Amino acid sequence: MITAFAPASVANLNCGFDSLGLALEQPGDKVSAIFNNDHIVRIVQITGDGGKLPLDAAANTGGAAVMALLKALGSKQGIDLQVHKNMPLGSGLGSSAASAVAAAVAANALLGSPFSKKQLFPFVLAGEAVASGSEHGDNVFPSLLGGIVLIRGYEPTDVVQLPVPQGLHIVVLHPNVEILTKDARNILPKQIPMKDGIIQGANLAGLVAGLYTNDFGLIGRSLHDVFAEPYRAPLIPYFDKVRQAAMYGGALGFGISGSGPSMFALCDSQIRAKQVAELMQKALHGKGIAFETYVSKINTTGAEIVANDKA
Amino acid sequence: MITAFAPASVANLNCGFDSLGLALEQPGDKVSAIFNNDHIVRIVQITGDGGKLPLDAAANTGGAAVMALLKALGSKQGIDLQVHKNMPLGSGLGSSAASAVAAAVAANALLGSPFSKKQLFPFVLAGEAVASGSEHGDNVFPSLLGGIVLIRGYEPTDVVQLPVPQGLHIVVLHPNVEILTKDARNILPKQIPMKDGIIQGANLAGLVAGLYTNDFGLIGRSLHDVFAEPYRAPLIPYFDKVRQAAMYGGALGFGISGSGPSMFALCDSQIRAKQVAELMQKALHGKGIAFETYVSKINTTGAEIVANDKA
Repeated sequence: MITAFAPASVANLNCGFDSLGLALEQPGDKVSAIFNNDHIVRIVQITGDGGKLPLDAAANTGGAAVMALLKALGSKQGIDLQVHKNMPLGSGLGSSAASAVAAAVAANALLGSPFSKKQLFPFVLAGEAVASGSEHGDNVFPSLLGGIVLIRGYEPTDVVQLPVPQGLHIVVLHPNVEILTKDARNILPKQIPMKDGIIQGANLAGLVAGLYTNDFGLIGRSLHDVFAEPYRAPLIPYFDKVRQAAMYGGALGFGISGSGPSMFALCDSQIRAKQVAELMQKALHGKGIAFETYVSKINTTGAEIVANDKA
Repeated sequence: MITAFAPASVANLNCGFDSLGLALEQPGDKVSAIFNNDHIVRIVQITGDGGKLPLDAAANTGGAAVMALLKALGSKQGIDLQVHKNMPLGSGLGSSAASAVAAAVAANALLGSPFSKKQLFPFVLAGEAVASGSEHGDNVFPSLLGGIVLIRGYEPTDVVQLPVPQGLHIVVLHPNVEILTKDARNILPKQIPMKDGIIQGANLAGLVAGLYTNDFGLIGRSLHDVFAEPYRAPLIPYFDKVRQAAMYGGALGFGISGSGPSMFALCDSQIRAKQVAELMQKALHGKGIAFETYVSKINTTGAEIVANDKA
C-alpha cells in the first residue's frame, strides 16, 4: 500500500483569476492505493468527509483520476483507494483537487511511476472535472507541483512555476458558511469592460514581476481582483471587515480563496502572518460564525509519497 | 543648446495591450532646447514632418511636455525648441511620444536636471495627451526609460522595467497606409468576454515570466492578442500574409505595433531578425504598398542627451 499527501491550494490569488494558484503546507488530503484482483478502481473508504462524498469511483475525484491514469496506460490493473480528507469540503481550498492529486500520485507510485508529475496533468484535470464540471488547473497543478503556479494556457497545457520569495506566508480563514462553486460561478458576468481586462492583466503581470524580483511592495500593489471579487465578496459574511483587519495588520494583499468562502491574506513573514491571522479571527469574534484558520508558508514540494508499505 | 534623442517604441506587444511597450534603438526623434528671453515656450522649427505638425507649443507634444515641466518648477523661463522628426507620423511607432520625451529630456538638462527620468513621467504623459487625447504611457515610458516597460497602474503611476533577454531583436515594418489612432480605438469593443480577459492576462503573465527566465519558447507562446488584433488586423493590408512570412522565418511572435499600421516581429537573434525582415518585405513585394523596415535590438538606454553646446 502506498500513501500520498496532496496539499490544499488557494486558486486565483486575486489578479490571477482562473490562471494562478499556490499550494499550502497544511492542510491536505491523503490517499492510499493498493492493488486488488478485480480489475476495477474502487473507493473502499473515505474518512473526514462526514459521509458527503461519493464512493462510486467514477464520481469521485480520486477515483476518476486513477481511472484516467489506468486508461492511458492501457492497464486492466485493479486498484483500491482509501481517501482521508483533512480539510473542509466546499471551502475554496481545493479539497476535490487535493484528493484527485493524492490519488493519482499514490496510484502512479504503486504502478512503478510510469508517469512524471507533469505527465499526470491530464489525469488530475479529469479528476477535478467530476467535481467541478470543467477541467481547470488552478487547484490541481499547485497541489501536484507545489509553489505558485501560472497556467498560461490549456491548448496544450502550459504551466509556469513561479518563484516563491523567501518569507512569503499565507493566512487562510475558512468561515463555516456554504457557498456552492456553481453559484459563485453563475454570479459572475459573462462580459466585462475591456478596461477591466487591461487592469487585471497588468496586475497579474506586476505580481509575476514582483515574485521574480522579491519585491513585496510590487506584489502587494498587484494583488487586486476586478473580475470576481466585486461579485463574490458580498456572498461572504464580513468580508470587508476581515479584509480591513488583515490589511491593518500589514498583509500584502487579501482576497477570496478560489470561489470562497475561505479568505486569504499574503504576508511577507511568518511573524506577520500570525499577527494578521489573529486580527482576522478577532474581526469575526462574536459574530456567530465558526471558522478555522491556517497559517502556512508556501509549499514548494507539492504532492508526495508519505508511506510506502510496498517494499 | 542641448539636444536629446528619444527612440521609437512598440506599444502593446500583443498580450500587453495598453500596458506594455518597448523601445527601439532606431529610429527616433531629436529635440534641441535653448533659452529665450520671452518667457514662453516656442516651437521654432520642425523638420521631417512634411509640415503636418503644429508649431503652436501647447498643441505640440514636445511643447506641451516642456510647458508642463516648467509649470511644475514654477519657472517663468522661456525655451525655444527645434523638433527633428526622424520617423513616419501616425505609424504606430510612438512618434508623438518620442517628441514629447526628447523635448522633456532636453529641457530638463537645459535647466540643470531638476528632475530624474521617473520624475518626468507626468510631463511626458501631458505631452502625449495633446496628440492622443489621453495620458497613456505605453509609448512614452519605454521611449524615456528604454527596455521593456510594464505599466501596472496609473493611480499612482506604477512602472516596472522588465528584463531584456540577450539577443532579443525586433523587426518593424511600416506600410505607408493611413490608420487614424482614433479609428483604431473606436473599432474596439467596450465589452469583452471575461474568458478573453483571462486568456490575455495569462499570456501577459507568461510573457513576463519568459522575460525573467530567458525562455524564448514561453515568450513566443505568450505573444497573442485577443483584445485588439482581431478588430485591427483587418485594417492593415496583407496583415495575415506578412505574419505568415514572419512566423515561417522563425519569429517568436508577430503583431500590430501600437494601433498600427506598423507590424512587428520579435526574434531571438539579430541574424533571425534580418531573415524575418526579408521575408516580411517579400510578402509585400509587388502589392503596390510602399513601406519602411527597421531591424533593431531593444534599446535599453532610453532617451539621452546627444549634444550639449551649453558648456
